[in-house]
Amino acid sequence: MPILNKDTTLCISLSARPSNLGTRFHNYLYEELGLNFIYKAFAPTNLADAIAGVRGLGIRGCAVSMPYKEDVIALVDDMDASASAINSVNTIVNDGGHLTAYNTDYSAVQRLLAEHEVPREYSVILRGSGGMAKAVAAALHDAGFDRGTIVARNEVTGRALAALYSYEWASEVGALTADLIVNVTPVGMAGGADADHTSFPAAAIDAASVVFDVVASPAETPLIVGARKLGKPVITGAEVVALQAEEQFYLYTGIRPTPDQVRQASAFSRQP
Amino acid sequence: MPILNKDTTLCISLSARPSNLGTRFHNYLYEELGLNFIYKAFAPTNLADAIAGVRGLGIRGCAVSMPYKEDVIALVDDMDASASAINSVNTIVNDGGHLTAYNTDYSAVQRLLAEHEVPREYSVILRGSGGMAKAVAAALHDAGFDRGTIVARNEVTGRALAALYSYEWASEVGALTADLIVNVTPVGMAGGADADHTSFPAAAIDAASVVFDVVASPAETPLIVGARKLGKPVITGAEVVALQAEEQFYLYTGIRPTPDQVRQASAFSRQP
Repeated sequence: MPILNKDTTLCISLSARPSNLGTRFHNYLYEELGLNFIYKAFAPTNLADAIAGVRGLGIRGCAVSMPYKEDVIALVDDMDASASAINSVNTIVNDGGHLTAYNTDYSAVQRLLAEHEVPREYSVILRGSGGMAKAVAAALHDAGFDRGTIVARNEVTGRALAALYSYEWASEVGALTADLIVNVTPVGMAGGADADHTSFPAAAIDAASVVFDVVASPAETPLIVGARKLGKPVITGAEVVALQAEEQFYLYTGIRPTPDQVRQASAFSRQP
Repeated sequence: MPILNKDTTLCISLSARPSNLGTRFHNYLYEELGLNFIYKAFAPTNLADAIAGVRGLGIRGCAVSMPYKEDVIALVDDMDASASAINSVNTIVNDGGHLTAYNTDYSAVQRLLAEHEVPREYSVILRGSGGMAKAVAAALHDAGFDRGTIVARNEVTGRALAALYSYEWASEVGALTADLIVNVTPVGMAGGADADHTSFPAAAIDAASVVFDVVASPAETPLIVGARKLGKPVITGAEVVALQAEEQFYLYTGIRPTPDQVRQASAFSRQP
């Protein structure tokens, strides 16, 4: 049974539709590392009340997911550069009532581009223009990728995101190709309308040198499966989720788990 | 490891100085009964923010301890009769954002008087005039005990409490005796200045037919030990704590544990 006591530290997540991933990832590592922490996902009924609760109850950390990543900005005390760069928050750290907001998606994408040694000279097509697309575009730009095209059917958000980083905009991939192609749309997501589809035509996948899909569930999306069949190096959404969660874990606990522990926690979090 | 997931229901306590009793009692029973609940004690930094968090996060239940039992009244939506009778709250139940306040100390004392078959014709001396003394006096009065004396050094609160129920007031026990004597002061509490003392002189204990000590830690206070030595029937603070926690458990989960399960949970909660 849980060895909970009055000194147990609580970390939470706020999301309209919580998954089990974060809860399982963090609790696995707390147990593994012997930390007196517990993690629980919440679907808040009111965001301002929930953040008041983070302060009032002394909840140490708070992951922020859809649709709260922007609304929460007005409710924190400080924005770390990772969050202010893209006006989007996915992590809040509570230091004695003082709330600092971060975006560990941004940091995770930057780390993955570095770890996979993707040359910053590569041209990029990024599909999507939502909150996560903003994080990926900012990470690409700040890592030195300066030849990019944002492909988004929504012209307003697509053009706006492209303009931020002097990237091109297009409404469809069409005949476009690039060295690095990145999917940041829900296409390929389990349970979605487009679970069996890819957001890039075969020609674009074939022409790419690296294929990056931010969709995390399943880890092996149709896009990733297709790229692997062609022998292309891939970066998966599962890697983004694990790395951003590791970063959150470090921000909350001050402890950096080993890569092996992160792999185990990530695998555990994905068990059915 | 804790089998926490996104659907796990959270119950909490709010207290300036949390103990482990509630956390261990409730989590033991959740485990025993296979409920997907978790319980954790908090020392809030701000009461209004904490209650906002109860609403905003959808926290199901909230125990309220010193010094918040009266301040919380302004923050809930409804007062159950058990709480409104004494203007003191120790339990909040959250039904989809609607907060109802109860006082399970009051209900627990009433149940104990009935279970121990204390005749309501008994005269009573009650020592104390704080929040818990109000709950005990109300429970005694509402159970039909109409010959009572409130003994409290604080004349203002003592007289006010006595007047509510047409009881007498005295500043000291002195030569007073009664059939039922009840301690609702911190005298005898572990770690307190008067841990080795009793709040009644030997003559009053000797003259009593039933001795009731609300102090729960230790369960065997000097008053209870003294009464047992004389062969007197006793009611202990440990019984109050277990019964009020059982009542809270029922309010939060809708499930009534067996007396045996309550005994086990209570014993577990008291392990060092």
